[in-house]
Amino acid sequence: MKKYVIGIDYGTLSARAVLADAENGSILPHTPTFPYPHGVMTELAGKPLPSEFALQHPKDYTDALEFLIPELVKKNGVDPKDIVGIGIDFTACTLFPLDENREPLCFDERFEAEPLAYSMLWKHRGADKYTHLFEDAARKLYPYLLDMTGGRIAGEFFFPKLYEVYKEAPEVYKSASVFINAGDHIASVLTGSRVHSVAFATIKEHYDNFGGKGYPDRSYFAEIDGGFADVLSKVDTDLTPVGSCAGRLTAAWAEKLGLCEGTAVAVPIIDAHGAISAAGIADKRATLAIGTSAVVAVMSSEYNNVKGILAQGYEATAEGLHSLEAGVRAMGDLYDWFVKNCVSAEYERRAKECGMNIHAYLRSLAAKKKIGESRLIALDWFNGNRSVMPNDKLSGMILGLTLATRPEDIYRALIESTVFEIKRVCDNYTSSGIEINSVVATGGIPLKDPMLMQILSDTMNMPVSCLESSEATALGSAVYGATAAGLYTTVAEASQKMKQPIAKTYYPVAENVRAYAELYAEYCRLYDYFASGENAVMERLHDLKI
Amino acid sequence: MKKYVIGIDYGTLSARAVLADAENGSILPHTPTFPYPHGVMTELAGKPLPSEFALQHPKDYTDALEFLIPELVKKNGVDPKDIVGIGIDFTACTLFPLDENREPLCFDERFEAEPLAYSMLWKHRGADKYTHLFEDAARKLYPYLLDMTGGRIAGEFFFPKLYEVYKEAPEVYKSASVFINAGDHIASVLTGSRVHSVAFATIKEHYDNFGGKGYPDRSYFAEIDGGFADVLSKVDTDLTPVGSCAGRLTAAWAEKLGLCEGTAVAVPIIDAHGAISAAGIADKRATLAIGTSAVVAVMSSEYNNVKGILAQGYEATAEGLHSLEAGVRAMGDLYDWFVKNCVSAEYERRAKECGMNIHAYLRSLAAKKKIGESRLIALDWFNGNRSVMPNDKLSGMILGLTLATRPEDIYRALIESTVFEIKRVCDNYTSSGIEINSVVATGGIPLKDPMLMQILSDTMNMPVSCLESSEATALGSAVYGATAAGLYTTVAEASQKMKQPIAKTYYPVAENVRAYAELYAEYCRLYDYFASGENAVMERLHDLKI
Repeated sequence: MKKYVIGIDYGTLSARAVLADAENGSILPHTPTFPYPHGVMTELAGKPLPSEFALQHPKDYTDALEFLIPELVKKNGVDPKDIVGIGIDFTACTLFPLDENREPLCFDERFEAEPLAYSMLWKHRGADKYTHLFEDAARKLYPYLLDMTGGRIAGEFFFPKLYEVYKEAPEVYKSASVFINAGDHIASVLTGSRVHSVAFATIKEHYDNFGGKGYPDRSYFAEIDGGFADVLSKVDTDLTPVGSCAGRLTAAWAEKLGLCEGTAVAVPIIDAHGAISAAGIADKRATLAIGTSAVVAVMSSEYNNVKGILAQGYEATAEGLHSLEAGVRAMGDLYDWFVKNCVSAEYERRAKECGMNIHAYLRSLAAKKKIGESRLIALDWFNGNRSVMPNDKLSGMILGLTLATRPEDIYRALIESTVFEIKRVCDNYTSSGIEINSVVATGGIPLKDPMLMQILSDTMNMPVSCLESSEATALGSAVYGATAAGLYTTVAEASQKMKQPIAKTYYPVAENVRAYAELYAEYCRLYDYFASGENAVMERLHDLKI
Repeated sequence: MKKYVIGIDYGTLSARAVLADAENGSILPHTPTFPYPHGVMTELAGKPLPSEFALQHPKDYTDALEFLIPELVKKNGVDPKDIVGIGIDFTACTLFPLDENREPLCFDERFEAEPLAYSMLWKHRGADKYTHLFEDAARKLYPYLLDMTGGRIAGEFFFPKLYEVYKEAPEVYKSASVFINAGDHIASVLTGSRVHSVAFATIKEHYDNFGGKGYPDRSYFAEIDGGFADVLSKVDTDLTPVGSCAGRLTAAWAEKLGLCEGTAVAVPIIDAHGAISAAGIADKRATLAIGTSAVVAVMSSEYNNVKGILAQGYEATAEGLHSLEAGVRAMGDLYDWFVKNCVSAEYERRAKECGMNIHAYLRSLAAKKKIGESRLIALDWFNGNRSVMPNDKLSGMILGLTLATRPEDIYRALIESTVFEIKRVCDNYTSSGIEINSVVATGGIPLKDPMLMQILSDTMNMPVSCLESSEATALGSAVYGATAAGLYTTVAEASQKMKQPIAKTYYPVAENVRAYAELYAEYCRLYDYFASGENAVMERLHDLKI
């Protein structure tokens, strides 16, 4: 009899779930989506939030479960008894404080108007201004911490966000019993256990899982700020390894979701890593998880000290392997910014006439252009640079504009800039000793945008594939559900059996490769000038006292 | 009995006319406008024109006369006998070929599908690719030519445009009896005389009116191209001085326009110089003629060799004075580009709800922002750089973009970039020995946009005034009509009597001055890097072989 596993993928704007055949990974047809009712909050209690804030409502996450799972089981017509495991992936670092009953603190009416009691999404940038304290302390006391994080410490990490709460919402900090990753919270709720995944800890929380040092000790946090010295007392420090079972579904949640009590729940993973497992864990491959942002992940059996990446973590994805993560901070987000802010009414009207959404319409025009025809070069740092010159103060740039520039020219230049950033990230891996000879791109955008895929292949000068399902990430989570259920011995084995078929492979075209090499060289020259060259104008503009 | 003079201002998109009291310059209420029916042509005979082309139909210019003048006389209720003079200003260098009967060559059906038989507007950029030939020849044979034109020779000048015709439309070149400035053509038509204004010749045609060398000789043109050696045979080389009478209105045209035969017609001037005379000819003042582009003109009684300007000409505006001209190649054009291409349907809807046009709506939002709040810096070279690093290959740039950037932020940054360019042009004058201590801004935009005027005053750190009438340029032409009619002995005298009152003066605010000094320093750093620094990326992008 067939066995099934559930994979739940918590993205930035919505959660999705798949039900997969545990033997071969084939996804059952109905794959429901749950857009978060509160989305990314722009105001709270009638007050607008600062533009660097990105908050969510934790209730959306459990509401997602209650909508998605019953829908998944019922619509796919599977007997709950045949569902043996649940895997969960979540954006990271997305976290929030819990009270002493392990309920989100923002549910408490005392804190319902307090922004920092809510879930701080991965791209929340309120902590950017404190990262220098973390870097200085690391440089002074524990330089190895900087080796784990590509040489810098990002504001999107766990402890800088906690420090932001400590400094800016001291009552929240004091009242928080624990700060928890949103993914860990879901697994904890479903199982009634305390779950803290090594995936989050080793990639986003300074947790050394390779050298065995664990968390940095009290002295590190004391160096940052005396009052912050005991922050580890507000963290679940018993870690649960990736690939293991976090616990069993409680009776109460089994009833709510229409599943069987005792179903295995996997230790959660980071969403981008779901994509790796869905593509089949493999060496010498870059896996791109493309969504609002893009992660460029590679796996390595050996330790490499790679500068400029976001982080690396041992066994964050699979046993015995280092997961290295770098990426592009705004990809889908950037295209959406453009469409929301910079596309004329005339274009919206024409798109409607053609029965296309505006992205598809712009792509149809942009795809007709020759490489370089727009004579534009953009830097894609509209949400800072995540790698390889990680710096939250960098910003976007568009150069080459003329009175003849049209929206589709800018749209294409923005797409090219994100592809160039991916190339730059891969070049950085390669120059640090990690070979890459193919690329798999996952997410909805690669399936929707053949132009982007061809640009990627031409720029990288290597084959680039996309997977059949746009729900690859959720399928990746299901791999962990199957491992947690004991159907496979290792994540690698489960991944090999359950991986998704390739939908299409794009191959580089020689003349395009030459043309893009020229544009990429211009991109790099501008990149170096603004990110590490003589003109720190972006940082100065960021720091302007208004 | 009162005497009146007509001023006709031929701009880029329309012609306007005023009827002014010759004694005090007061403008009669009715000031008709005639938008050119063919506008700036984007196609010809069903074929799209190259994006660097900017052509017009010469018939629009005479149609403008036939509409504007009868309208002006009738609606203002003035007896034609009391109208004693007509002044004309025109964009420059705007020119076209005439046949042996001195009719525009494009009226001939053999040439009606030939783009280069039409009027090449000042901003037509088809000749950009030939300017190096002119510069090389000047450097080799007549370096003084480069002193007249700020060190470089622009593609918008007279002879580069003629050379474009010679190379790309040889039949047009061969069949042309003469190439004529559009302004000279209008004066010729009205009077039946051959008119060639010193204003056009000395500013745009290498005509040395100060040193007395006149046009460069045959050897200069032969150095450029042997076949181009005799180009002066296709030019009216008898020049008519500014401030003089070009001739008398013919009977035929008097009847067409409802004026008296024999009315004095002034030698035409360049449109930007109309603004100078309307503001009252004065030392130590920069006059800004702001429209689609902006000219920053200063007058000097002494000769200064100023690098980086567009050109200077002796007695191009008034007797005994050098007129120096530099400027910004896209100003209103740039704001229009933004509004046409980059403003969303949502903003258009909101503007409509507020009963505002989209420019006014964007200004209302942009004006609420603090200086530097958008954290954007733009380079305004969307139509190349006219001064002080004249280079047609430079292009626009916007830096500092984030996902929080809104259209009004970009709109304001573009306005600031054009103001910074004006400041840069004025700094260049100052550092070359020409003192500037006040600014008068003319044109419609200064009256419509107090935000721009305040930014200008804060950036320049000096008072900036605007004139009461948005038709100051046409009034400036009327000054020459009065001089041609013999009512005044000199242009300077006429200008002092007829100058327009100041509508408003903006004064710098100390804290704004400091804030803009900081942003302007960033602008200059980027300016130098891209215009003359180590990274000629804009030129390389321009020259990319597609």
